[in-house]
Amino acid sequence: MGFTNSVPGFKAEINNDFLKKAEKYRAGIIKRDAYPLDEVEIIKNNNDWTVKPIGPAKAAEQYRMQKDSKVCFDFGNHYVGYADFNVNYINSPSDAPLHLKIKFGEKPFEIGENREDYDGLLSSGWIQEEYIHVDDLPAHIELPRRYAFRYMQIVVLDTSPCYSINITDVHCTSVSSADISTVAELSLTDKELIDIDRVSVRTMAECMQDVFEDGPKRDRRLWIGDLRLQSLVNYETFKNYALVKRCLYLIAGLTQGDGRLAACIFSKADPIASKVNLFDYSLLFISCVYDYYVNTKDTDTIKDLFPTIKRQIEIASQRFDENYIIRDSSDWWCFVDWNDDLNKQASAQAIFIYTAKQYVELSKVMGEDSSETVRMIENAADASMKYLWDNESGFFVSGNDRQISWASQIWFVLSGILPVEENARLMLRMIETNPAVGIVTPYTYHYFIQALFDSGLKKEAVKHIKYYWGAMLADGADCFYEVFNPENKDFSPYGSRVINSYCHSWSGTPSYFIRRYLDK
Amino acid sequence: MGFTNSVPGFKAEINNDFLKKAEKYRAGIIKRDAYPLDEVEIIKNNNDWTVKPIGPAKAAEQYRMQKDSKVCFDFGNHYVGYADFNVNYINSPSDAPLHLKIKFGEKPFEIGENREDYDGLLSSGWIQEEYIHVDDLPAHIELPRRYAFRYMQIVVLDTSPCYSINITDVHCTSVSSADISTVAELSLTDKELIDIDRVSVRTMAECMQDVFEDGPKRDRRLWIGDLRLQSLVNYETFKNYALVKRCLYLIAGLTQGDGRLAACIFSKADPIASKVNLFDYSLLFISCVYDYYVNTKDTDTIKDLFPTIKRQIEIASQRFDENYIIRDSSDWWCFVDWNDDLNKQASAQAIFIYTAKQYVELSKVMGEDSSETVRMIENAADASMKYLWDNESGFFVSGNDRQISWASQIWFVLSGILPVEENARLMLRMIETNPAVGIVTPYTYHYFIQALFDSGLKKEAVKHIKYYWGAMLADGADCFYEVFNPENKDFSPYGSRVINSYCHSWSGTPSYFIRRYLDK
Repeated sequence: MGFTNSVPGFKAEINNDFLKKAEKYRAGIIKRDAYPLDEVEIIKNNNDWTVKPIGPAKAAEQYRMQKDSKVCFDFGNHYVGYADFNVNYINSPSDAPLHLKIKFGEKPFEIGENREDYDGLLSSGWIQEEYIHVDDLPAHIELPRRYAFRYMQIVVLDTSPCYSINITDVHCTSVSSADISTVAELSLTDKELIDIDRVSVRTMAECMQDVFEDGPKRDRRLWIGDLRLQSLVNYETFKNYALVKRCLYLIAGLTQGDGRLAACIFSKADPIASKVNLFDYSLLFISCVYDYYVNTKDTDTIKDLFPTIKRQIEIASQRFDENYIIRDSSDWWCFVDWNDDLNKQASAQAIFIYTAKQYVELSKVMGEDSSETVRMIENAADASMKYLWDNESGFFVSGNDRQISWASQIWFVLSGILPVEENARLMLRMIETNPAVGIVTPYTYHYFIQALFDSGLKKEAVKHIKYYWGAMLADGADCFYEVFNPENKDFSPYGSRVINSYCHSWSGTPSYFIRRYLDK
Repeated sequence: MGFTNSVPGFKAEINNDFLKKAEKYRAGIIKRDAYPLDEVEIIKNNNDWTVKPIGPAKAAEQYRMQKDSKVCFDFGNHYVGYADFNVNYINSPSDAPLHLKIKFGEKPFEIGENREDYDGLLSSGWIQEEYIHVDDLPAHIELPRRYAFRYMQIVVLDTSPCYSINITDVHCTSVSSADISTVAELSLTDKELIDIDRVSVRTMAECMQDVFEDGPKRDRRLWIGDLRLQSLVNYETFKNYALVKRCLYLIAGLTQGDGRLAACIFSKADPIASKVNLFDYSLLFISCVYDYYVNTKDTDTIKDLFPTIKRQIEIASQRFDENYIIRDSSDWWCFVDWNDDLNKQASAQAIFIYTAKQYVELSKVMGEDSSETVRMIENAADASMKYLWDNESGFFVSGNDRQISWASQIWFVLSGILPVEENARLMLRMIETNPAVGIVTPYTYHYFIQALFDSGLKKEAVKHIKYYWGAMLADGADCFYEVFNPENKDFSPYGSRVINSYCHSWSGTPSYFIRRYLDK
């Protein structure tokens, strides 16, 4: 997610004990060498950019480069890491500073498009482009920043009339706290699912750094909602429990005052809580803790975090109106999906029920009394059927305008207030009817697939996994994307696709579904 | 000097013993803190850029800067050094990398003009401009490269829609191997000469780094011809004899094969000899050694370097034709002045005589027989009067076209082949007649002033010091310039003044004249 909003009552609260534990479980970063495979040229083709192969990357080491020379390397896959290379002078010692422009792109058009032409909503600071001067040659250049890329272009802005350069030993030290080599091979034989799993695993590995990042190119932050999906995949693949634990303590250790959770943490040297608070993300922290318990049985951590998740139930329940329906609001109070048209009320109501049930389960583990929450769940479920269920259409509705959206149905299926058979009928009716307010992000697509599996609609689930993630594969995805609309591949919620993230964790959950439900 | 040419027979020869000595006498760099005094705005005014004061630099620390904000600091004088500053976020944590463009300028138009519009002969790599991303705020930014500047502009290319920044504690660690505080105060009372001396001393100090650099902005190299002038000033001011010794050993330790000297040394971590060889510069190394002896009486060093200077006489004398006149050539064989119209033959002949005389003096010190050189001097002097002196015009002529230039007269006066009274008449006649092929660089202006003093024309010398360097002062010089034409201040031999060096050692010799001849 790219936007933040500001909460007026924000007052950072730090739990140093939790931050110490977060530090203790800091991920060991695994470094691996990566090298460019090919030299390519990124060529404008109508309104798009295509990749023209030139030759093996090593051959480019022979080039004598001068002002306006450029070379583009294709590393053959997506990498997150640190680039370095050697530059030497040819003909005459460098009698003026060498000036280079270096661009990195997950996608070819990031190389093709000019930063100067960018006019999107998000900061152009995310565009992966550097200008560097090299005073002394020969030089070993180590770029200090981390990039997420497959393509790396070096443009010579100037040498001098007296000397040329050649560029050799282009290399990337790729980094991740996930070890792909430890992930079990699939036993299923469906080629498309195997491919989807492979890219899904890579997407997750690229996002697993010092914390679970939402995307390694942008925004590199620890969001609660994203963490929930990342950890689900992690349990089925890398099983890096320490990294999850670290993130749980970070989130619980940096609150916004009054125990309210920040929707995301800026994981810098000194981590900072964002000022953003989101109704659903705060509640989904309970799911993060619940999933962690189910997969680890680590009761010590649950004991630590129990007051935090209890507080989220308390805060969320304050939003019930006199009918036990979550109050709607016009500001950015609840995420659900990256869709301005979506009314979030019904989803929020369902998410309360969904996460409160997990809270009750954890209360049992802790031996805590949760009778009050059980009553709230019953009241909220009853109110949902009374005020949000529309018998005529057979859908849950949301907000004053009684909006029928995909998200509302999905979350009410997940909340489990209807029997499985009714849920299945609701899902099929939704797919058939196709309400106008649809799914925008892979994040919500994940919960759609989960709702299909929860409703016993395994075949439909596989079909939609292939429809959505298969289409990304067909688009040439090395990793799965932050935003993707199979009907409009260039869509960007930010006004420019060069700022989209093409390796985004909330898009990498097929491996969870494939390994949990299909590869048995 | 900005150009290099290539010598086909070039074969680097390294004298490791000399390089070890050069290392031993490496200069201790003195670091001092410098701070911006004022915030200014650089404004386009017709075809020029003027400096508009805004307020004290400290007040700018209060600014909330966002995309397209900029601030320009005026340090109040010329500095060579490393810049650093602090950046912090305002309003919200930085949720995207901060992108800054930072420019440094010795002169306001370097800030005003865009690099993209530069179309000069020299590498745009010299333009002092950086783009940097800052991933984490707050941050202390230390720019790794050294700049030569008075003005420093920071442009915010982007923050994000969510955060602003403020910039505080802008600072420069200025560097020099010269300690201005050790330079004696002048006793003379002429205000203009005192000012010229002050700027001259600063110019030299700014150029005294790890070696004597020609200019700290550009080209930062150790040239023999420039070193000669720098060391003359140094003996009258800083008296940093070790730095001269270091440079002498560097030059003598890195030859081009056959004992031939490189006209300049690239003083990198591993110093490299340039491929450029210049007839006059090779001979002027003798002057460097001679001046060093006169000022230090360090016979050990002279003993080391004697074979090197002897070899330069041998090589140069191979260029005499059957009439004992130095053969002319159309390529870049001899510098004398940065003037394409200038025929160098007569100057080269005179420079041979001038430096051979110094060689003879050093031979005496070393107890070496120099009778052959004495004969060469006599022969060359006789041939000069026979073939290069034009009795009709009363001037020395040069080349097939018998060109009459300022440089030819100046160098023959310096060669001392005529009596002082005749030299004085020649100088006055030259000034009066004003031959079309005039002086282009401060370097040649130095030898003009020296020729006036040598001819006993002290009053004329002071007049011309004030005319030339006084005009730079009136132009607002913080240091003296690489190129300056009082009649055409925007002149650049490189097609763009933004690439001119506005602190150039060969322009800083007035202190030598003032302290040697006037301040007694």
